[in-house]
Amino acid sequence: MRRHLTQELHNLIERGRDRQLRLAVTGLSRAGKTAFLTSLVHQLRHAGLEARLDLLRAAREGRLLGAQRVAQPDLGVPRFPYDAAMAALDGTPPQWPAPTRGISELRLTIKHRTRRARGLLGDTATLTLDLIDYPGEWLLDLPLLEHDFLSWCEAQQATLGAERQRLSAAWLQAAGALSPDDTADENHLAEVAAHYATALRASREAGFADLQPGRFLLPGDLEDAPVLQFFPLLDIGEAQRAELEALPGSSVYKTLARRFDHYRRHVVKPFYRDHFRRFDRQIVLVDVLGALNAGPERFEDLSRALGTLMRSFDYGKRSLLNRLFSPRIDRLAIAATKADHVTPEQHPNVVALLEALLAEPLKDLRYADVPVKALSLASVSATEPRDVEHEGRRRAALRGTTLEGEDVLLFPGDVPPRLPAHDFWARQGFAFTAFRPPQRDTAALPHVRMDAALDWLIGDKLT
Amino acid sequence: MRRHLTQELHNLIERGRDRQLRLAVTGLSRAGKTAFLTSLVHQLRHAGLEARLDLLRAAREGRLLGAQRVAQPDLGVPRFPYDAAMAALDGTPPQWPAPTRGISELRLTIKHRTRRARGLLGDTATLTLDLIDYPGEWLLDLPLLEHDFLSWCEAQQATLGAERQRLSAAWLQAAGALSPDDTADENHLAEVAAHYATALRASREAGFADLQPGRFLLPGDLEDAPVLQFFPLLDIGEAQRAELEALPGSSVYKTLARRFDHYRRHVVKPFYRDHFRRFDRQIVLVDVLGALNAGPERFEDLSRALGTLMRSFDYGKRSLLNRLFSPRIDRLAIAATKADHVTPEQHPNVVALLEALLAEPLKDLRYADVPVKALSLASVSATEPRDVEHEGRRRAALRGTTLEGEDVLLFPGDVPPRLPAHDFWARQGFAFTAFRPPQRDTAALPHVRMDAALDWLIGDKLT
Repeated sequence: MRRHLTQELHNLIERGRDRQLRLAVTGLSRAGKTAFLTSLVHQLRHAGLEARLDLLRAAREGRLLGAQRVAQPDLGVPRFPYDAAMAALDGTPPQWPAPTRGISELRLTIKHRTRRARGLLGDTATLTLDLIDYPGEWLLDLPLLEHDFLSWCEAQQATLGAERQRLSAAWLQAAGALSPDDTADENHLAEVAAHYATALRASREAGFADLQPGRFLLPGDLEDAPVLQFFPLLDIGEAQRAELEALPGSSVYKTLARRFDHYRRHVVKPFYRDHFRRFDRQIVLVDVLGALNAGPERFEDLSRALGTLMRSFDYGKRSLLNRLFSPRIDRLAIAATKADHVTPEQHPNVVALLEALLAEPLKDLRYADVPVKALSLASVSATEPRDVEHEGRRRAALRGTTLEGEDVLLFPGDVPPRLPAHDFWARQGFAFTAFRPPQRDTAALPHVRMDAALDWLIGDKLT
Repeated sequence: MRRHLTQELHNLIERGRDRQLRLAVTGLSRAGKTAFLTSLVHQLRHAGLEARLDLLRAAREGRLLGAQRVAQPDLGVPRFPYDAAMAALDGTPPQWPAPTRGISELRLTIKHRTRRARGLLGDTATLTLDLIDYPGEWLLDLPLLEHDFLSWCEAQQATLGAERQRLSAAWLQAAGALSPDDTADENHLAEVAAHYATALRASREAGFADLQPGRFLLPGDLEDAPVLQFFPLLDIGEAQRAELEALPGSSVYKTLARRFDHYRRHVVKPFYRDHFRRFDRQIVLVDVLGALNAGPERFEDLSRALGTLMRSFDYGKRSLLNRLFSPRIDRLAIAATKADHVTPEQHPNVVALLEALLAEPLKDLRYADVPVKALSLASVSATEPRDVEHEGRRRAALRGTTLEGEDVLLFPGDVPPRLPAHDFWARQGFAFTAFRPPQRDTAALPHVRMDAALDWLIGDKLT
């Protein structure tokens, strides 16, 4: 009983001293969110023991005492499946954890000593860290709040390049046969919408990211609900606005417009209202190497998707988000993941490429005075760098095990430090191999610069 | 354009004349909800053509002109999968449709002629019928609104008979090792709760119905959320209330109590508030023959579950539901389904048994002046009655095809017209065989008394 009372008092004091932080982790699917969060929890739990965290000042100074998982505050949000993820990484053979679906969270309490003048160690303090994992695809829905159905139709048509058109052939044919002034047949609309969702899924499978609406890819409880049964109409635009707006409520145009509007109000807004505006810090993970590997149309698509996604962090006073939800994120990290898939001397190029890819959004963020840092990292390093003799020269190489279990020594090639020009794609200068997680001999997960990311995201709260 | 305008005006007038009806269909899992709704839509669409609907007055009088599916009003609710269900019934071989999960809906417009004096036909009129399908398990959560965590723990312990205890062995062992005043470990609670959910699922598989909380069986988007990670604590009761309430917030007892409370407020209440209070009519389907087949503990359990379920329709002025949500259901049907699985002369016994099973709730409903009718029906009749010579006597038998595809002629036995006494179970007087749906030669689904159900549920709106 005594122990409980102490704990309660302690919580009260902690809240009074503002020692709680909500850190959100996002990224488009396959960017590596689950591996990042798993490694983050793992590193903090092994801080002061096996974990190598020299770039995190509190750890370097020996002030990080450890971390514990405790009960999360939001009872209606799934728990982040840390144990299942660690079980996968500790399997024989080790496997990458299964991707999370939707939002999940986990609360840590981090115990540390405070800093004193002249390097003296101070009192013990506790930081309560809420980690929230959510699909970056949800942020791609932000523009829907600024669009109405007609302007969204126009905008979506612009994103359909040659390959997306090929992947969307069945939908394009079905939608092409519809006229905005047809009387809506709910069954038929459901069919065409199913073609649209299939096209979105096929595009995602093929590596595309700039896909709207985000929930079509992970419908959850809304599966088969009319709110997820809309799609852009083709070949309509502002020029026809008056004519379209005059159509009756039972028309295809008005029916789809109602569903679009319902989606904005009952799917997009609740995410920003109930979750997003409560985040203090955010890290966005980007699989820039994967996109580089996948060719020019997908790289261009990633660039567009990231531009859209980053707008959720642009807190210029006039921004839509600010007006609607007053979010409070005060520090942002953008990380290129899977840095272990290229040799270490290429890491600066990875960061430079990420910054080039995000040049426009980064300008906006700096103008809006949002502290932001770009870095490259590997949540769980699956390779070891090796210097090898090759055709008479010393070259940097990587040693790792492929997903199929083959031990290999690779030269992954050079990462361009700026947006690749036409001739890069023509030369196909970059070959990316997927590795399986390492067979570990020690308790700590090997990583690249997780400590640097932690220092930027929570370091100032550990002083 | 002309057509649209006419439609809009028409809708306005219909709403003005109160010609909309929301009819809800529920039942415990495997009671036959999907088959019922599919047949209901099918019969109305074939009214005036092949469908046999003589017990529905409007059809008998030739005033039913047909029905069409139109866009449903609730965009966030999944559509009832009528086409998929019909495709299953029309398959080779025919199959029962896949059960629905969660809530779904479908809107029909029914065209009919109004009645005039001396049997003359009147004007054409339209009834807009919203059909809503939802799991009866959700109604079993109603008592949670009256309980707090402690009284719920006590009530749940009373439901654990010998067989439920056997099915819950792993959970009982895990929960038995917990003390209410332990400090809560979120991981451990998640594990024990997983055992509890597994025990509930195993109990349902074994034919039990009185299972709380209902969402543990169909978690949807709440999978892995702490709100679905509670369970009753054993061996606690009112006597310990003061002591338990004094425990700190971090104790097992208080943690589970918070989750229980969150479940009440954020899962149970929203269903009643957002859906239930908008229903005009309700039919509850009961697989009384299946329970009869499964033995005494399960029959007793069904009786208890139905007692709980029916309380959602008891609108006595002092009832909890009335105080909280002011529901408006003005007519109720209770139907024993799968009547085609016994010979026709047994049908009155099926209804008598259903009424005996529901004796207490029916008394309450009649006292509360809720019009209620008990009947037996088969949504899709899978058998044909035959008179056969057996051991020198003429006996009623059933001809049908088993799920395995074997054509059989059966004597299913007699249904007791009142609650079976001990000797009924000892004699094991009833043998229930599951049949596959019929291979149809005509367009209309064969049924038993679907027309009687329709007449009670919507007949008065077709005059």
